[in-house]
Amino acid sequence: MSEAIKGRSRIALSPGALLAPLPAVLVTCACPDGGGGVLRDVVTVAWTGMLCTRPPMTYISLRPQRYSHGIISRSGEFVINLPTADMTKKLDLCGMLTGAKADKFKRCGFETMSSTAVAAPTIADCPLSLECRLRKPDGVDMNPLPLGSHDLFFAEIVSVTADSRLMSESGALRLDKAGLVGYLHGEYYAMGRYAGKFGFSVKKKQNTNL
Amino acid sequence: MSEAIKGRSRIALSPGALLAPLPAVLVTCACPDGGGGVLRDVVTVAWTGMLCTRPPMTYISLRPQRYSHGIISRSGEFVINLPTADMTKKLDLCGMLTGAKADKFKRCGFETMSSTAVAAPTIADCPLSLECRLRKPDGVDMNPLPLGSHDLFFAEIVSVTADSRLMSESGALRLDKAGLVGYLHGEYYAMGRYAGKFGFSVKKKQNTNL
Repeated sequence: MSEAIKGRSRIALSPGALLAPLPAVLVTCACPDGGGGVLRDVVTVAWTGMLCTRPPMTYISLRPQRYSHGIISRSGEFVINLPTADMTKKLDLCGMLTGAKADKFKRCGFETMSSTAVAAPTIADCPLSLECRLRKPDGVDMNPLPLGSHDLFFAEIVSVTADSRLMSESGALRLDKAGLVGYLHGEYYAMGRYAGKFGFSVKKKQNTNL
Repeated sequence: MSEAIKGRSRIALSPGALLAPLPAVLVTCACPDGGGGVLRDVVTVAWTGMLCTRPPMTYISLRPQRYSHGIISRSGEFVINLPTADMTKKLDLCGMLTGAKADKFKRCGFETMSSTAVAAPTIADCPLSLECRLRKPDGVDMNPLPLGSHDLFFAEIVSVTADSRLMSESGALRLDKAGLVGYLHGEYYAMGRYAGKFGFSVKKKQNTNL
């Protein structure tokens, strides 16, 4: 089932989740346990992305069975922590264990700190953290929105914190120095060589030769 | 505005689209022009991601002013083509020009071919293409869904095609060999070193030492 074009041929695959690269992030959450204590969890998520620039809206999709699903549904908040490639084993583990049985923060040795705008903790080991609050768009009945295997949590990014070592002397965020990791068809990869800056194709003397 | 933790300090940034890495893809679309011909366009999108595994649902968010927004709204279909890092200048250019004034396919020298399930073309230069059809989830009033600066198009992945050179002899897709590119805070980066396989933290003699 292939179509040849000038020596190229194309194979049809079964339709599936082959978009890549995707973010691979550690989502933290917390809510009261009803007895004066706190339930908290950290879960690995690749089904996330940017939905809108203004307001800055993102989402995470979680299976309803996930321990974190219940906590986020109750608290209405979560934090998206971007891990480094050096943290990949811990990143993977937080997707394999359930917070119902294991304290994944302890298991991974994560250092947590208070977030600035939400009750969910920030993972200090992560170079960048996006603090999010659920926000149901007009025209949507439920948040989370059930889609099938996953429920979609719509959220607004309400605060961002970064490791101060990522800031240049002029105060610019150098996220390229963070050593981030991405998810690609069931595998994790560090980010590699620089390939260009947004808008570079029309900058530099309007040289748009390709 | 930083909180020091054991020598680390954290800086608060204004809330924004700092999730990374994100996919950086070429979205193609086509619809009848009303006079027996065809309108088509290709546009660069980073506001995309996986929403659900079963059914395989994805999305793209586009500004309403985009030429492609009108075509996709009319046709109900689009193709997400994953470019390689070597195509980054063309990838960037397709986000800078408008299809209302330029034929970006010709400008970039893209070789197009018929898709298998939708009328929008596949870019043969891209190693993998996800053919998508708009699918409004239950509980959502509109598709696209206006969120502010961007409108969110919910879609199902209905077919996938890949360059046959990406298939191993055993028939496995080797997307890691594709040389894909990601988007990170206004810059494009090739994917870099392998950092692990999904589930590796709990495989190999159950060794979960971190």
